[in-house]
Amino acid sequence: MAERLVVIGGDATGMSAASQARRRRGPEDLEIVVFERGRHTSYSACGIPYWIGGAVDNVARLVVRSPEEHRIRDIDVHLHHEVEAIDPQGGEVRVRDLASGQEKRVGFDHLVIATGAHPVRPKLPGIDAEGIYGVQTLDDGEAVLTDLERKPRRAVVVGGGYIGVEMAEAMVKHGLKVTLVDQAAEPMSTLDPDMGRLVHQAMENIGIDVVTEAGVEEFEADSRGRVRAVATKQGTFPADVVVLGLGVRPNAALAQEAGLSVGAVGGICTDLRMRVTGQERIWAGGDCVEVLNLVSGRPQNVALGTHANKHGRVIGINIGGGYATFPGVVGTAVSKVCDLEIARTGLRESDARQVGFEYLTAMVTSTSRAGYFPGSSPMTVKMIAEWRTGLLLGVQIVGRAAGAAKRIDAAAVALWNKMTVEEMTSLDLGYAPPFSPVWDPILLAARKAAEAIVASCQG
Amino acid sequence: MAERLVVIGGDATGMSAASQARRRRGPEDLEIVVFERGRHTSYSACGIPYWIGGAVDNVARLVVRSPEEHRIRDIDVHLHHEVEAIDPQGGEVRVRDLASGQEKRVGFDHLVIATGAHPVRPKLPGIDAEGIYGVQTLDDGEAVLTDLERKPRRAVVVGGGYIGVEMAEAMVKHGLKVTLVDQAAEPMSTLDPDMGRLVHQAMENIGIDVVTEAGVEEFEADSRGRVRAVATKQGTFPADVVVLGLGVRPNAALAQEAGLSVGAVGGICTDLRMRVTGQERIWAGGDCVEVLNLVSGRPQNVALGTHANKHGRVIGINIGGGYATFPGVVGTAVSKVCDLEIARTGLRESDARQVGFEYLTAMVTSTSRAGYFPGSSPMTVKMIAEWRTGLLLGVQIVGRAAGAAKRIDAAAVALWNKMTVEEMTSLDLGYAPPFSPVWDPILLAARKAAEAIVASCQG
Repeated sequence: MAERLVVIGGDATGMSAASQARRRRGPEDLEIVVFERGRHTSYSACGIPYWIGGAVDNVARLVVRSPEEHRIRDIDVHLHHEVEAIDPQGGEVRVRDLASGQEKRVGFDHLVIATGAHPVRPKLPGIDAEGIYGVQTLDDGEAVLTDLERKPRRAVVVGGGYIGVEMAEAMVKHGLKVTLVDQAAEPMSTLDPDMGRLVHQAMENIGIDVVTEAGVEEFEADSRGRVRAVATKQGTFPADVVVLGLGVRPNAALAQEAGLSVGAVGGICTDLRMRVTGQERIWAGGDCVEVLNLVSGRPQNVALGTHANKHGRVIGINIGGGYATFPGVVGTAVSKVCDLEIARTGLRESDARQVGFEYLTAMVTSTSRAGYFPGSSPMTVKMIAEWRTGLLLGVQIVGRAAGAAKRIDAAAVALWNKMTVEEMTSLDLGYAPPFSPVWDPILLAARKAAEAIVASCQG
Repeated sequence: MAERLVVIGGDATGMSAASQARRRRGPEDLEIVVFERGRHTSYSACGIPYWIGGAVDNVARLVVRSPEEHRIRDIDVHLHHEVEAIDPQGGEVRVRDLASGQEKRVGFDHLVIATGAHPVRPKLPGIDAEGIYGVQTLDDGEAVLTDLERKPRRAVVVGGGYIGVEMAEAMVKHGLKVTLVDQAAEPMSTLDPDMGRLVHQAMENIGIDVVTEAGVEEFEADSRGRVRAVATKQGTFPADVVVLGLGVRPNAALAQEAGLSVGAVGGICTDLRMRVTGQERIWAGGDCVEVLNLVSGRPQNVALGTHANKHGRVIGINIGGGYATFPGVVGTAVSKVCDLEIARTGLRESDARQVGFEYLTAMVTSTSRAGYFPGSSPMTVKMIAEWRTGLLLGVQIVGRAAGAAKRIDAAAVALWNKMTVEEMTSLDLGYAPPFSPVWDPILLAARKAAEAIVASCQG
């Protein structure tokens, strides 16, 4: 008799796991049932700001694979079905058909928890006013676009992380006057403030009013219950529409209620094969789990489609009878804002301090191509290395040029392999005038960091 | 009394070594004398094809630092001075002033040999005809541009390596009808033929006539001694101008005549600090030395400005009293031809066979950005991994998109660290829709290679 795999959540991790398991085990051997509470499968949440901003013209393009395409491969997808409880010992889930309201119990031999994350919505006065949007699901995106048809004039974006900054730019493209309020000293606080400052300037250059150290205190609504202003520590900003970009939190409640292991930073805990800690037949991956940061040695939540897909593949291979692991992350992220490319990997200064590293930093400004080559543009690279050992701890890049951001990959692989900045000065990175100065900016930063290490040891 | 550093060759390695040594030791402690037989210092030979093609408008832009700028830093540069002999035991060189013809002997406490490389000029009938150019020095570039003022109509480029392919494109930009003849099965033989085929097609798309397996037999000249055709195994091709792109060979003769160690592939041998093997006070770097290929374990000549600069820095630090090493290369190279970006690192299939690796290959075609993002373009990645262990051996990339070529850097760092393709599937590379599909093409290739390894172990 066939085993049954139940998957909770039909996005990146869930559908990748289902597809990988199906590639390895046919329907006669493994029944696969997916419960998704929304109405889409396998879509790119990361693409939503670009869809709202108009760079992507059709929401259908964000859907990698429709429910029908999955069903053709014998993956039994149920949309509008919400799993309300997991019984790990009994090996079943309780699921509600959101359309009919009916509940049923479904047994599993393998369970994949891929419940994702939800946007942070601070419990502030007025948070439930109309016109305040998170940006997480395709429905959220649709809601923002529908609201924009009302021709609002002023947008306030709350939070200066990736989504906040990307959404601020999208709102500018729609012709709105945009204010971005952020509680940190500089926006893009995934970078150190000295690098975030460069993003701040670029945002102001396209007309975004950036207000820092402006924690929100209240959302003011008009008499019809629609948001009309955002009150912050730095004053009150009128708003016809508000976008929340305050990050996301793992959807781990279902797992927690079932007594499964949930960690210190709020995500489900798994082993290297993405099996929930202490469980034999329950797996979890994507935005709802904690992952190991290989640089800090600490658990971390990272909501990124690329990891969610990797987790799904690992789970599907393992359920399919193979062997695969997910060792962890080094914290790489890239983004494009205004005319800037932004990238980071590893630890910021504040992270390094928190973990207990003594460190040095080096910052260089170089160019993306040979200085004499057309289209050569400035890029700034910041490198953080452990004192004495010179172990690479982190790299941040802000550049005006095509090709700036993905240079972070070389640093990410160096971090993964625990390289020192001294050894990095010898790295054999690609050089030709259209692609790099003779010293790639990453090499240049490594040189400066290595020299700082030597100087500090002599001092 | 001050020591004296004598540098032979005023380009990347020589001037980097001089500059680094000067930063660490003042003129009262170290006298620095540079002999350069040409009339420029510190220029970018790699930029010459782009200057000839018009992308770089002024030759002065290729000169990173002029002799005067070096002299201001107390580096005593002598142009038009050729060193004719080295006496390692006596600690002196014999140098000729090419202008006056006078010779003198100059003693050294440290000597840097940075004599570079010379273009291969096969000893074929007619090779000395007028109108046949190598592309190595700024004078070569000047000569080609002067020749182009005669409005030649047909160019034949001999050799389909980087310089040959770049020069063929430059000639097209000047309105010439261009034939590229290459003795290999496909041009760009730094790639495997299946990847070189993609370059072949792109060249034909811009009107270059590519003739493969066409070893040259003779250069035919007219009655005034000017080249008029190139005779090959595949027929004779009329030519008003000929460009040789047959690669370069280390200028090691001076070292060899002095009894210094020259290796099997024709370059000067050094230790990790770039000291000539067996010598106390003689150093060498750049195109004239052999370097260790860290993947094959074999010595290799690599003529690339980025390595030449690294060597110079390492030598200058060591002479300056510091400590630095150059461990070797993994064989990374990038190039832009027509609308293609091309990159490679590590071993080709033929290299792997020669060294004795059993290997598997994986090839994927993906896109540079998320498929739904504007400007997303195809790129092909080929990965070579050792059988059983899955050790990464090499990666090749051909792509139509900005950002294709420099993706090789992640692979180069992975090679440097002896990663397996299995481990590479977990790498934390930057992901956002404007920069990458959710599976970066490098990750996708690693997945496919890792799956091939597993399948081969089961088979």
